[in-house]
Amino acid sequence: MEKIKVGILGCTGSVGQKFIQLLEDHPVFEIAELAASERSARKSYREASKWMMDRPLNSRIADMTVLKAGDKLESGVLFSALDSSVAGEIETLYAKAGHVVISNAKNHRFDKHVPLIIPEVNPEHLEMTKDQKIGKGCIVTNPNCSTIGLVMALKPLHDKFGIEKINVVTMQAMSGAGYPGLSSMDIFDNVIPFIDGEEEKIETEPNKILGEYSQREVVKLAEIDIAAQCNRVNVIDGHLETVQIKFKEKPDKISIIQAWDYFIGEPQELGCYSAPTVPIHYFEEDNFPQPRLHRNIENGMAVSVGRLRKCNHYDYKFVVMSHNTIRGAAGGTILIAELMEKKGMLK
Amino acid sequence: MEKIKVGILGCTGSVGQKFIQLLEDHPVFEIAELAASERSARKSYREASKWMMDRPLNSRIADMTVLKAGDKLESGVLFSALDSSVAGEIETLYAKAGHVVISNAKNHRFDKHVPLIIPEVNPEHLEMTKDQKIGKGCIVTNPNCSTIGLVMALKPLHDKFGIEKINVVTMQAMSGAGYPGLSSMDIFDNVIPFIDGEEEKIETEPNKILGEYSQREVVKLAEIDIAAQCNRVNVIDGHLETVQIKFKEKPDKISIIQAWDYFIGEPQELGCYSAPTVPIHYFEEDNFPQPRLHRNIENGMAVSVGRLRKCNHYDYKFVVMSHNTIRGAAGGTILIAELMEKKGMLK
Amino acid sequence: MEKIKVGILGCTGSVGQKFIQLLEDHPVFEIAELAASERSARKSYREASKWMMDRPLNSRIADMTVLKAGDKLESGVLFSALDSSVAGEIETLYAKAGHVVISNAKNHRFDKHVPLIIPEVNPEHLEMTKDQKIGKGCIVTNPNCSTIGLVMALKPLHDKFGIEKINVVTMQAMSGAGYPGLSSMDIFDNVIPFIDGEEEKIETEPNKILGEYSQREVVKLAEIDIAAQCNRVNVIDGHLETVQIKFKEKPDKISIIQAWDYFIGEPQELGCYSAPTVPIHYFEEDNFPQPRLHRNIENGMAVSVGRLRKCNHYDYKFVVMSHNTIRGAAGGTILIAELMEKKGMLK
Amino acid sequence: MEKIKVGILGCTGSVGQKFIQLLEDHPVFEIAELAASERSARKSYREASKWMMDRPLNSRIADMTVLKAGDKLESGVLFSALDSSVAGEIETLYAKAGHVVISNAKNHRFDKHVPLIIPEVNPEHLEMTKDQKIGKGCIVTNPNCSTIGLVMALKPLHDKFGIEKINVVTMQAMSGAGYPGLSSMDIFDNVIPFIDGEEEKIETEPNKILGEYSQREVVKLAEIDIAAQCNRVNVIDGHLETVQIKFKEKPDKISIIQAWDYFIGEPQELGCYSAPTVPIHYFEEDNFPQPRLHRNIENGMAVSVGRLRKCNHYDYKFVVMSHNTIRGAAGGTILIAELMEKKGMLK
Repeated sequence: MEKIKVGILGCTGSVGQKFIQLLEDHPVFEIAELAASERSARKSYREASKWMMDRPLNSRIADMTVLKAGDKLESGVLFSALDSSVAGEIETLYAKAGHVVISNAKNHRFDKHVPLIIPEVNPEHLEMTKDQKIGKGCIVTNPNCSTIGLVMALKPLHDKFGIEKINVVTMQAMSGAGYPGLSSMDIFDNVIPFIDGEEEKIETEPNKILGEYSQREVVKLAEIDIAAQCNRVNVIDGHLETVQIKFKEKPDKISIIQAWDYFIGEPQELGCYSAPTVPIHYFEEDNFPQPRLHRNIENGMAVSVGRLRKCNHYDYKFVVMSHNTIRGAAGGTILIAELMEKKGMLK
Repeated sequence: MEKIKVGILGCTGSVGQKFIQLLEDHPVFEIAELAASERSARKSYREASKWMMDRPLNSRIADMTVLKAGDKLESGVLFSALDSSVAGEIETLYAKAGHVVISNAKNHRFDKHVPLIIPEVNPEHLEMTKDQKIGKGCIVTNPNCSTIGLVMALKPLHDKFGIEKINVVTMQAMSGAGYPGLSSMDIFDNVIPFIDGEEEKIETEPNKILGEYSQREVVKLAEIDIAAQCNRVNVIDGHLETVQIKFKEKPDKISIIQAWDYFIGEPQELGCYSAPTVPIHYFEEDNFPQPRLHRNIENGMAVSVGRLRKCNHYDYKFVVMSHNTIRGAAGGTILIAELMEKKGMLK
Repeated sequence: MEKIKVGILGCTGSVGQKFIQLLEDHPVFEIAELAASERSARKSYREASKWMMDRPLNSRIADMTVLKAGDKLESGVLFSALDSSVAGEIETLYAKAGHVVISNAKNHRFDKHVPLIIPEVNPEHLEMTKDQKIGKGCIVTNPNCSTIGLVMALKPLHDKFGIEKINVVTMQAMSGAGYPGLSSMDIFDNVIPFIDGEEEKIETEPNKILGEYSQREVVKLAEIDIAAQCNRVNVIDGHLETVQIKFKEKPDKISIIQAWDYFIGEPQELGCYSAPTVPIHYFEEDNFPQPRLHRNIENGMAVSVGRLRKCNHYDYKFVVMSHNTIRGAAGGTILIAELMEKKGMLK
Repeated sequence: MEKIKVGILGCTGSVGQKFIQLLEDHPVFEIAELAASERSARKSYREASKWMMDRPLNSRIADMTVLKAGDKLESGVLFSALDSSVAGEIETLYAKAGHVVISNAKNHRFDKHVPLIIPEVNPEHLEMTKDQKIGKGCIVTNPNCSTIGLVMALKPLHDKFGIEKINVVTMQAMSGAGYPGLSSMDIFDNVIPFIDGEEEKIETEPNKILGEYSQREVVKLAEIDIAAQCNRVNVIDGHLETVQIKFKEKPDKISIIQAWDYFIGEPQELGCYSAPTVPIHYFEEDNFPQPRLHRNIENGMAVSVGRLRKCNHYDYKFVVMSHNTIRGAAGGTILIAELMEKKGMLK
């Protein structure tokens, strides 16, 4: 079977590099085009990028010539790791030109007919792309890295018990800030209790993702009351979040754990290549999950939860942790494409 | 004026070492005796301890012979940095023998007539020692390291507006686990979402500290509803805590900041040597306070707050940070002794 | 084809865990027995070990009952990750009982007929086991973690140009100290310029490994004059070493790089499963190799070199880096077993 | 006595900030002027700088208006923390205008009549400024941070035994790269075996500093054969260096330690304010000195040495460690000014 040719927009940054790494031996997609800003255009990828991944750069990719993002491309599917300062316009342009643009950038996440997808959570929202009415092209977006792990853990609970309220405090990894990102002088031996724009994303994205979508209508937002506080910690990969949760119906502890244990979604049912076998891993140990020990479970695509216990302010408290640059960025975005392919949405 | 002779119980551990460092040039107290477990007894301090402080060990102290904790001591005031496995019994023994024991251990914190003191917050609780009725001796306790910074920040707000509820998530430094404490393999590149017994301490200690005490009665606990979640992060010193707060009366933001800015307590009024001039520093910057930048303010004795803003679940959210081994342990304990001395309670 | 059953001695420690992780899906070997000290014996592995690897523990292994090291075992091949305090005696015992013991411990490394093996470097030394004359059993040893990377880089140069002298300064990862190993309070924000016994190992092991062995004789040590200084740094995995080298014949820079580039050994020729395709990776970039970026190349089994340049004291200087718990410990030891299997030495 | 007014060139960077911190309560100097690049000029220092020191910014300084480096200044003494891209020209300009410019930048270090000063080592080189013949002004330079600790340790040995050869491998702190300096993604969990231009500085600066200067002549360089390799490690402050040394005369170990123990220089004899009482601290412990434990000895102005032992390639090996931004930069530069003041060279 011939692979589907894909392009990567914003190929030199850290998310762009992660796309390249994860797509290297992909059974369905093949990197055919790389695009970046004017500064990198017309250089070989080897010259244009400062390769930072922990496996060596594939030589076929290294020799590819970087194109200018915005110029005409051939690949039907474009993964966008563009910076938000330029992503909005360029992604629209490609969608109009007939490409399926699957984006990790925040710009279009709240556009009316643009779905904000976690494949296990709201695959039915992909239908929304038909409402975009821009020819054969469309835009699909991937949520913020700290939203994804959280909403994966919330989904089976929301379905079963109804969630009223959640309170989240994050401890987020440095890789979330990109490259060069944080100065070593700022984050070493330190916690920074602020990440620009992050709390707003966590307080709004889950309600779109968990919203109801009926054919040809606008998504009806869920009504979970969310409060978030975000911190950056001295960890390379893996966002850990403490969560307090109030339900409509009051489940016992076992029921919650079972809801997590038995949870699977369409990517598992359809056998998507990057889909974790078990999307949510619950740990019984008091001191788990931990970023360094658990971020790589199922190749970084699973979400880990633990420390479920009663809370005197809400109903329960727990901890959720997920790999921010794999499940929370490039890996999650690729899984969207795999799901679309399985559903016949990539032609 | 002659200095008051003091002894240090548990002198070889990390809190014991911090006591020694902070008392080195103290104008009121002079280290006269060092005591530790059988293993260290009869050795010189140089041999008995593995000195870990970042200033060299004073040679007078280094040459002192370590005594056995539990044996007869001469010093009127004893600072206890004993491990909780032995602190309970040994501290009682010394109090009965007529010593003023000021302890950093948790054992006696909730004993009926034992005060749990933050000098700026509840100095009047020191009167409680008279109810102990064990001759001239008594036990006074210092709260848990993560409680101290928090309650310092709460005190002026509780006095002015009444606090109904607080929700706390901590990111605590490694030094809080003592020495050797955490394995480097456990905490490096990691967050551990669990500290044994810590959440319980934060959920109970503030209500004793902020409780009302009238002569000869038992302290009437405050009734703040507290929920806590504790995490260990890869920071050497300085506990950072995110706090959400619900008031009885609803203050505006300016009033809260002013309450912090103008707050002083007895140690400031009486001019205690280790008392910070400004106990609470409020930062306007979005990303402050931070452990590495602000833990050493006022020699590690001040508390830093920042990011005060509205909260949709409670009334306000903010961040508090303090030095866990200075203000939160040895320094705080020494300040209790200084206050007692100023109040004539050390004879 | 049936897999060869192997046992792991010292299965609960960090090297023992790495053996388990690397042997999980091994095509040639199958873990049949786990043994450890009295403390762990008769427990399930799940209970006996504190699993620290970054992939979850396989449930078949988790359910195995840990045996007591020293008791009778069935497996023909035993991998030893025993602590050096007990390894000497126990390994001898099993060898005498007919087992092939391949050890990561230091105890027998300099025994007269015990080979000290890096599979790519001195596979012919395996013949030495015939001189051990203890029935069917034998002892084979794996060198120290900081020796292995170094000697891999030296081997092709020694063969081609003859090495007279090398000067080595190491910056070694924390995982080399095992678990719990170093206190976080000792190594965080720090360098420790001392590792007990390490300099002696680097100064002696290479000359045995690079020595000449002729059938039935004692190995003739190589005569490289080695000076070493060892430091521990705040890195989780990957030992980096700066090397200065003086040759007998004076090669130009290109010849050295070519010697590295073209180097392969028996494991590559025989197609051993864990053998890296390219054993030595040379980097042209000024600031490479680096532990975090390059330790996982070829699944942690390759050695990285870089910064080759003239030296005014010796002939050349360069940097070598390798994964200390994979290539430098468990992975290297497994490769010895794979090589022995290919050469028909495991029956 | 009136304080001497000083200006700081390049006041907003990390060395500039350290100058401000160290001069805050200085008994001899008073900060009268702050200058920086066009971007900061005419702003208050509070606005112009991102204050990163671990003590709060003094409010008098915060309110000062930053001037443009290159514009007319009043202060007789100017400390330069300018970036080397502009330092050369601007420093010359101020020297010609009559200012005593004491610089931390590398630009003029090898100018013919410009002294390269470590106050304890070569105070007599200050006389060289008279040869500059540019009116009342002059330029004096401070060596590179990794040179200073090294040469302090070499000086008493060179004087007593004559040094023929030294081999140095450094493990340097992140703060040496300034702010923002290294990306956290580059140095976390890593060692970078390259620092641009650093090896050259270590191989050349010591011979100028230890050179002989006779009135009106050009300094006669010392002839120590130096080889250096430089690495960046994950430490915030404190450069550690392993040193191998070959002497002309062969001292025993005790004589070397005594040479260090008894070493003092002019700053100690003249009682300079920032001078460490004991410039060189020798540690007997195998694993000392260490950056985190010993960088702050004598307020960061002392140099620590340890692990002196025989070397089979040279005569001895040892380890030296010093605080790179205090003794190695701002503190060392201020000590030069203090020494010049004591010697009557600041009018």
